[in-house]
Amino acid sequence: MLKMIHTMLRVLDLDRSIAFYRNAFGLDVADRYEMEGFTLAYLRNAGNGFELELTTNRGREDPYPHGEGYGHLAFSTDDLEGEHERLTMAGVAPRDIKSLAYGGRPLARFFFVSDPDGYQIEVLERGGRYA
Amino acid sequence: MLKMIHTMLRVLDLDRSIAFYRNAFGLDVADRYEMEGFTLAYLRNAGNGFELELTTNRGREDPYPHGEGYGHLAFSTDDLEGEHERLTMAGVAPRDIKSLAYGGRPLARFFFVSDPDGYQIEVLERGGRYA
Repeated sequence: MLKMIHTMLRVLDLDRSIAFYRNAFGLDVADRYEMEGFTLAYLRNAGNGFELELTTNRGREDPYPHGEGYGHLAFSTDDLEGEHERLTMAGVAPRDIKSLAYGGRPLARFFFVSDPDGYQIEVLERGGRYA
Repeated sequence: MLKMIHTMLRVLDLDRSIAFYRNAFGLDVADRYEMEGFTLAYLRNAGNGFELELTTNRGREDPYPHGEGYGHLAFSTDDLEGEHERLTMAGVAPRDIKSLAYGGRPLARFFFVSDPDGYQIEVLERGGRYA
């Protein structure tokens, strides 16, 4: 069976990104590979084994244009307000908590935060369809 | 605990993308929401519950510029050659199987394929660090 195992993003400063994802989202570096010209790091989520792969190309100094296609990576949490406060205290500057309804019923409560390269991350309250 | 639950990509033709991800990767639509101005679909992977969220903005006709930041979404499989052949027969046109070594040892065997919007998908042979 085919199984989704990771998503890959290119970042400018790998150590900065690793520190961010550890502090903000509790991801640990499962493996790190120094290749010729680039470095790969796999950041693992204990919850389901899915990984965020970060790639740094050595010598790259200009930020990667993000385009409009890629949206975000989402995390779920049991304690949305608590995570929002924790991230605020950590200096990560989460945006306001919002909610989305569907057919007159609540569908989602969430906020967004930017990573050091400006990628968007959604934090969703666990419940309903968001497990 | 924070848990990675989905990644989101914007697509032009939702039905075309849903058909592609079903046929090529066995993802099923867990939920679909027709919102004002956009549609969301959550495509679920039975293996670990991680989801691919597809967003279609109604009225959007021009392809989304992809930029250079977002890399790919990866799947693992026990049968890399079999999947490559199956996707070839399905008309999905996977690229050649390649391998990557690290420290003189095999690290990964994989191929890439493009989805209907041109997003890159990696199919990795299960084994070693790629479970």
